[in-house]
Amino acid sequence: VIVSELTERELVSRVHRRLPPSPPWLTVGIGDDAAVAETMRNRLEVLTVDAVIDGVHFDRRFCPPDAIGHRALAVNLSDLAAMGAEPRLALLSFALPPDLPVADFEGIVSGIAVLATAHRLTVAGGNLTRTPGPLAIDITALGTVKRRGVLPRSGAHPGDIVYLSGSVGAATAGLAMLQQSAAGADQSCVTRYLRPEPRVRTGLLLSRNRAPSACIDLSDGLADGLSRIAEASGVGMAIDADAVPIEPGARTWFERHQQDPRMAALDSDDYELLFTVRPRLRGRLRAAMQHGGVPLTRIGVCTPDHGIALRTSDGRELTALPHGFSHFR
Amino acid sequence: VIVSELTERELVSRVHRRLPPSPPWLTVGIGDDAAVAETMRNRLEVLTVDAVIDGVHFDRRFCPPDAIGHRALAVNLSDLAAMGAEPRLALLSFALPPDLPVADFEGIVSGIAVLATAHRLTVAGGNLTRTPGPLAIDITALGTVKRRGVLPRSGAHPGDIVYLSGSVGAATAGLAMLQQSAAGADQSCVTRYLRPEPRVRTGLLLSRNRAPSACIDLSDGLADGLSRIAEASGVGMAIDADAVPIEPGARTWFERHQQDPRMAALDSDDYELLFTVRPRLRGRLRAAMQHGGVPLTRIGVCTPDHGIALRTSDGRELTALPHGFSHFR
Repeated sequence: VIVSELTERELVSRVHRRLPPSPPWLTVGIGDDAAVAETMRNRLEVLTVDAVIDGVHFDRRFCPPDAIGHRALAVNLSDLAAMGAEPRLALLSFALPPDLPVADFEGIVSGIAVLATAHRLTVAGGNLTRTPGPLAIDITALGTVKRRGVLPRSGAHPGDIVYLSGSVGAATAGLAMLQQSAAGADQSCVTRYLRPEPRVRTGLLLSRNRAPSACIDLSDGLADGLSRIAEASGVGMAIDADAVPIEPGARTWFERHQQDPRMAALDSDDYELLFTVRPRLRGRLRAAMQHGGVPLTRIGVCTPDHGIALRTSDGRELTALPHGFSHFR
Repeated sequence: VIVSELTERELVSRVHRRLPPSPPWLTVGIGDDAAVAETMRNRLEVLTVDAVIDGVHFDRRFCPPDAIGHRALAVNLSDLAAMGAEPRLALLSFALPPDLPVADFEGIVSGIAVLATAHRLTVAGGNLTRTPGPLAIDITALGTVKRRGVLPRSGAHPGDIVYLSGSVGAATAGLAMLQQSAAGADQSCVTRYLRPEPRVRTGLLLSRNRAPSACIDLSDGLADGLSRIAEASGVGMAIDADAVPIEPGARTWFERHQQDPRMAALDSDDYELLFTVRPRLRGRLRAAMQHGGVPLTRIGVCTPDHGIALRTSDGRELTALPHGFSHFR
């Protein structure tokens, strides 16, 4: 069965069936002109939208439907995490090619529903339309944050320490393994590409303790994240390339393909958090270190000059990072 | 210049430049991982998302860029109006083909910006991505409403009077005129297709006076709107087809093409409001009648049975409406 054989109402009911019951604060849910929700007292609202498109952000040939849904929501949850926000609700907008199997559509919705439930996010509404183009999923996510807990990109000062959650490289290596259907692909890299875990809990703990001076997520890669914090804050950075944690399976993959893992991991779109902390406030990281579920590693320091220097541990300059000015391709 | 020759940052700055300054309640605007906004005390939040896609919802061959932007936002404002909500903010998600002229992109943004400003809606953020498919614009809009002012679809009772704002038919006729580049096209029909005016003010006044028992917007046409209120409320409807106001230019167009205007206007996606009112509360319509800027016309009555009968003024049955179960095409 393909989606053009069903009515819009039938497709909506397939979505509805995969979602948990609505919470009481959702006054009007799926099925009216718009959703209606109560707001939370004394909290600011955090809003983000991201689209994923077949052939650009994923590939139906090797991404299972539930992974497509997972990734579509994860990119939004990662943005909320980077602001220190607690996820609250999402709106799902699907552009469906008429020949998409209904089973694939249901799989995508299930991937979204499972990740949403894990993060206590309610699907409040959405939109379905057909498209003559590729499958596209556009998700808007809303979260809440206390006024003093917002984590912007722009607060880093010279001397602040640069931290990274988890490890990088797995997304780039995992995608390459899937594209080349490599025998002996490293399963942890493939899983981290297909079903990245947004660092929501770490973001919440960092926000609660007001530890970071600046924070961003790495959905466009480490090099881009470093540039954006540096630019928004008006600082430079000295990064120790040998201190950046690289996923072991990714390191092996890069080396086997004659790439320097320290360089290859720079553009990997792992859903990690990059943030800066004033040295005297380092103690505030304790809760996030102990309960965030993922290591936090010191990878460098902010500098007064405006460049980003990537150096080896013995002081050799590896590269000066480009400032993210690639064309819109 | 086409969009693939610019960087994402340059494209974002082209958007930013066309928007008015941010209001103080927008704590973090365009340019961070997510937007941050204060919420309004004692009001519920209304959320809606809608996508428009080239070749499905508009056609770049005869829709000027600013009209594409206008329509993309109008469909969302119409949803807010149908809930009785006051527009507050929007997130814009664009999927851009690489060969789209930058001037067209800017024109679309300008069309959105002009309509947003007219309705005091703030563009708080968004997303840009390239697409190998057609141009697509996905807009999420948020509004606010008082708890007792929500206008759902589901509150109609037998005996309630059915009202329609403005007139119908102009969208269908205007689109046909553009498609056939008809000489002597009726300018008011063409304008109403290209730049529909969402009935935000009427929706606000109806909500403030708690006049309607049910309300919906006609972005899927009058037949669909009647069916959806009837189904959600568990009522039937007897509609006087001769009482439905049809745009004069559209009536002429339909007659010239051997169509019964009363039937042809049923599927026209004019951005009007359809709502029901208990007979003894009719007086509450006065403010919306006087200050909504658009006439409100009585077109029928809700019935205890479950069908929708469309009759001429002399009592002949024109048609029994289908229940919106067309396939997802």
